Amino acid sequence: MTDDAKTPVSIIGLGLMGTALARAFLTAGHPTTVWNRTAAKADALVADGARLAPTIGDALGSGGVTILCLTDYPAVRELLGGAELAGTTLLNLTSGDSAQARETATWAEKQGARYLDGAIMAVPSAIGTDEAVILLSGPRPDFEIGALGTISHLGEDPGLASLYDVAGLAMMWSILNAWLQGTAMLKTAGIDAATYAPFAQQIAVGVAGWLPGYAEQVDAGAFPAEVSALETDARAMAHLVEESEALGVNAELPKLLKAMADRAIAAGHGGEQYPVLIEEFSRPGQ
Amino acid sequence: MTDDAKTPVSIIGLGLMGTALARAFLTAGHPTTVWNRTAAKADALVADGARLAPTIGDALGSGGVTILCLTDYPAVRELLGGAELAGTTLLNLTSGDSAQARETATWAEKQGARYLDGAIMAVPSAIGTDEAVILLSGPRPDFEIGALGTISHLGEDPGLASLYDVAGLAMMWSILNAWLQGTAMLKTAGIDAATYAPFAQQIAVGVAGWLPGYAEQVDAGAFPAEVSALETDARAMAHLVEESEALGVNAELPKLLKAMADRAIAAGHGGEQYPVLIEEFSRPGQ
Ligand SMILES: NC(=O)c1ccc[n+]([C@@H]2O[C@H](COP(=O)([O-])OP(=O)(O)OC[C@H]3O[C@@H](n4cnc5c(N)ncnc54)[C@H](OP(=O)(O)O)[C@@H]3O)[C@@H](O)[C@H]2O)c1
Ligand SMILES: NC(=O)c1ccc[n+]([C@@H]2O[C@H](COP(=O)([O-])OP(=O)(O)OC[C@H]3O[C@@H](n4cnc5c(N)ncnc54)[C@H](OP(=O)(O)O)[C@@H]3O)[C@@H](O)[C@H]2O)c1
Repeated sequence: MTDDAKTPVSIIGLGLMGTALARAFLTAGHPTTVWNRTAAKADALVADGARLAPTIGDALGSGGVTILCLTDYPAVRELLGGAELAGTTLLNLTSGDSAQARETATWAEKQGARYLDGAIMAVPSAIGTDEAVILLSGPRPDFEIGALGTISHLGEDPGLASLYDVAGLAMMWSILNAWLQGTAMLKTAGIDAATYAPFAQQIAVGVAGWLPGYAEQVDAGAFPAEVSALETDARAMAHLVEESEALGVNAELPKLLKAMADRAIAAGHGGEQYPVLIEEFSRPGQ
Repeated sequence: MTDDAKTPVSIIGLGLMGTALARAFLTAGHPTTVWNRTAAKADALVADGARLAPTIGDALGSGGVTILCLTDYPAVRELLGGAELAGTTLLNLTSGDSAQARETATWAEKQGARYLDGAIMAVPSAIGTDEAVILLSGPRPDFEIGALGTISHLGEDPGLASLYDVAGLAMMWSILNAWLQGTAMLKTAGIDAATYAPFAQQIAVGVAGWLPGYAEQVDAGAFPAEVSALETDARAMAHLVEESEALGVNAELPKLLKAMADRAIAAGHGGEQYPVLIEEFSRPGQ
């Protein structure tokens, strides 16, 4: 059963993710049109109330918003290459980098489309729950797609969704790796992962709470050592490297932490606070 | 004013940290004895009610717990070398590694002392507040030092306090570096650090919440890809590396993330979930 008050949506690309998107829209009662290169992948959705678009042009012309979810940007450009885009609203949820997003936005806008780029920070099984974070960038959305998850519009620059996406993933992997580093160290003392995890979690939540304050130092470009100086951190990093090596666990992460701090100290920042490392992170490394 | 119901404490070492410890005990009303190699550093504390021990032996013999807070472990061994330790309770809050803590525990116990090791996860100005986390390991404490901050006893192995300390610091620096990586990337798009920080904070808190669950996989030694497979992570890591290079920001952290994942994939774990990387973290790297 579809609800005509809801934004009509067309989903182009019914892979694992596109199928999850289409299903969430159907469940929420959006008029839902689908199209896929391999048409058979639409069958189950059509049986559940989706309308099958016979052509790409039909999918683009059905009003509301057309969502693209293909393998990559070249596939998007190939598929839309010959189509009439004037007057359409496109939301491209295909993964890519910020340059691809900006190029595709310029290209689509030239043809008269309203183009938004997006990134899905979720696995298909989470789509339709609050846990599915979907980042949008480009013009402010004039459609309602809250059925997919937690939608966040980041700004006008269509490259922002991919940038926030990879930055967020870097945070995710970094926390997991730091936790694995500590877990490996504590295993040598017979402490199991479940015993250590709540401690790691508590530290992570505490440090996460410092970020807004540290961000003020970055934006001001001034890094007074209010809490501790970088050279104090570097001394403790040396302990971390030595302890990791003595225990026979991996020391690459400890060494990278120390190398970045050492470089900032060599550049004269040893008496400043940790966020002064933004200067190292802002230029290509070694 | 001291309160005889409170554990009598002796502080040996009145540097920046030892002075902060002594002051917190005085404020809380503990009978407080102090000793420092350079005696003049005790003057202000004595003026505020601390008792000056004329000798190390006197400081050790004043009952309760004797807290050591010196530059490093060699200084502790040098200072206590000729002293009578039988019947004393020692808490060594000097920073060091787990091997030094275990060796010093064995040495002190042989001489009849009750020995605990500890690590201070705080700067001197935080001592006396809940924010000052103090980790203890060794025999269960038979004294009360909550005046210093949040006290946590980790277990019998005297090496645990240093291990948790460096593991926690690795988490701290990793979160700060991941945040700086993202901040540097978003700066290229004109997004300021204050705009990005709450997003990074939200991701960090979310991921921290996964750790107890992921710890179960590590302890079970089984890593079914319930949410996503490592090879999916590795593909997104390639995006992160390429995006960092294209933007002209540092790519060392992204490359290390990818290198560790690639090694686990090469070892046949591409279809398993992220915590399978514990195997890479548990052995020396390249
Ligand atoms: N799966 C996830 O966990 C996840 C999470 C976040 C983001 N994403 C992103 O979502 C996008 C789709 O992922 P997915 O998991 O759905 O991938 P998938 O299952 O491999 O599906 C790929 C889709 O792209 C279509 N396609 C590829 N090349 C095409 C072309 N040249 N012309 C027309 N159609 C083409 C495929 O059509 P056929 O069916 O005809 O082959 C299929 O519908 C990717 O960018 C991915 O990075 C996925
Ligand atoms: N400050 C912090 O933010 C902080 C945070 C966490 C942990 N810690 C740890 O706490 C410990 C002390 O740090 P701190 O900041 O107080 O250092 P500090 O200000 O440099 O003080 C060092 C203390 O050690 C004494 N000392 C050194 N060698 C000695 C020897 N051979 N014999 C007798 N006394 C000796 C010094 O005595 P003199 O006064 O006679 O020189 C002084 O009392 C270190 O292990 C440090 O890593 C410090």
